[in-house]
Amino acid sequence: MEFSSKLLENAVNEMSQLPGIGKRTALRLVLHLLRQPKEQTLDFTKALNTMRSEIKLCKSCHNISDTDICDICANPNRTENIVCVVEDIRDVMAIENTSSFKGLYHVLGGKISPMDGIGPNELNIYSLVEKVKQGRISELIFALGSTMEGDTTNFYIYKQIQGCDVKTSTIARGISVGNELEYTDEVTLGRSIINRIPFEASLKS
Amino acid sequence: MEFSSKLLENAVNEMSQLPGIGKRTALRLVLHLLRQPKEQTLDFTKALNTMRSEIKLCKSCHNISDTDICDICANPNRTENIVCVVEDIRDVMAIENTSSFKGLYHVLGGKISPMDGIGPNELNIYSLVEKVKQGRISELIFALGSTMEGDTTNFYIYKQIQGCDVKTSTIARGISVGNELEYTDEVTLGRSIINRIPFEASLKS
Repeated sequence: MEFSSKLLENAVNEMSQLPGIGKRTALRLVLHLLRQPKEQTLDFTKALNTMRSEIKLCKSCHNISDTDICDICANPNRTENIVCVVEDIRDVMAIENTSSFKGLYHVLGGKISPMDGIGPNELNIYSLVEKVKQGRISELIFALGSTMEGDTTNFYIYKQIQGCDVKTSTIARGISVGNELEYTDEVTLGRSIINRIPFEASLKS
Repeated sequence: MEFSSKLLENAVNEMSQLPGIGKRTALRLVLHLLRQPKEQTLDFTKALNTMRSEIKLCKSCHNISDTDICDICANPNRTENIVCVVEDIRDVMAIENTSSFKGLYHVLGGKISPMDGIGPNELNIYSLVEKVKQGRISELIFALGSTMEGDTTNFYIYKQIQGCDVKTSTIARGISVGNELEYTDEVTLGRSIINRIPFEASLKS
């Protein structure tokens, strides 16, 4: 792309560093900012800068927070010895939306993925294992995405806490509510048959 | 969406003001910035702020530029009395990429669109009409998108310069190079038959 302005080119190059934003989209977004009042660009950049410099991670669960201990960990009404292990804040938000979990979270910050150079030391695994070893957790729920990396991470943590007095579970894999059998992939369908649940239990949920 | 951090929420809200960026995408982009070094966010916001505050429009053609007169208008090798009328800088870039036009441009900054509250006064039409009336232009090429708004804008300018000694043309509408007849829409195909060109002329291009 040939730009008539170096300033425009810089802005487009920076914008296109964001994932999923190509040069063309970046140009469209930058031209949009140019058509808006200057204040919008100022507000936008100020919000990003403030967030980047002032945001904290909860010292207990590693979730994004404005305070040292996040609202969920600080809430006395939550069951603190049931901990749900998730990848990042988006999973916390998704589970919180369901209102079906009243324990605490532990945010790993990613999944073990040798292909991307992410090993156990890049994730918040050590502090989780410590919590388990100190006997502060009675049940650990693995809620990572159902991928090779997710399964590897689950298994790694499981191995680390073997011998500790802790119940472990993973969220159920199965057919989505509202889905037809014939459109479900065979791995999911196979697992949903192997891990079938008592009919009486299904009536309750 | 319930956020665990006000700073994160602000950043996501500002990011989702951009066209085509919803809350979910905005969250994904903001989390990406959080995973990168602080410098990336600083460089990004600085590039946007500098661009928004220092960028200029060429005083002659209204294209985006770092100087008062843009590089194209200032180039002595370009034919200055042939002017191509376009909507915005993206069209200038697209035509410049073809290397088939050696005249100057006039950037309108949009198309007449009463539905969006854009009338002739919101666009750079007056200065174009003035140039024509001063006899500085011998040919005007309308190169707006082939939409109702584009045609309206073309016609409005055409009416304004009636009686002036200027040749007007529009870029050809027809079947894209490489396209099959059967997949072309009927309006385009119909126009391409009505505006057929001598076979000898087609051999040259």
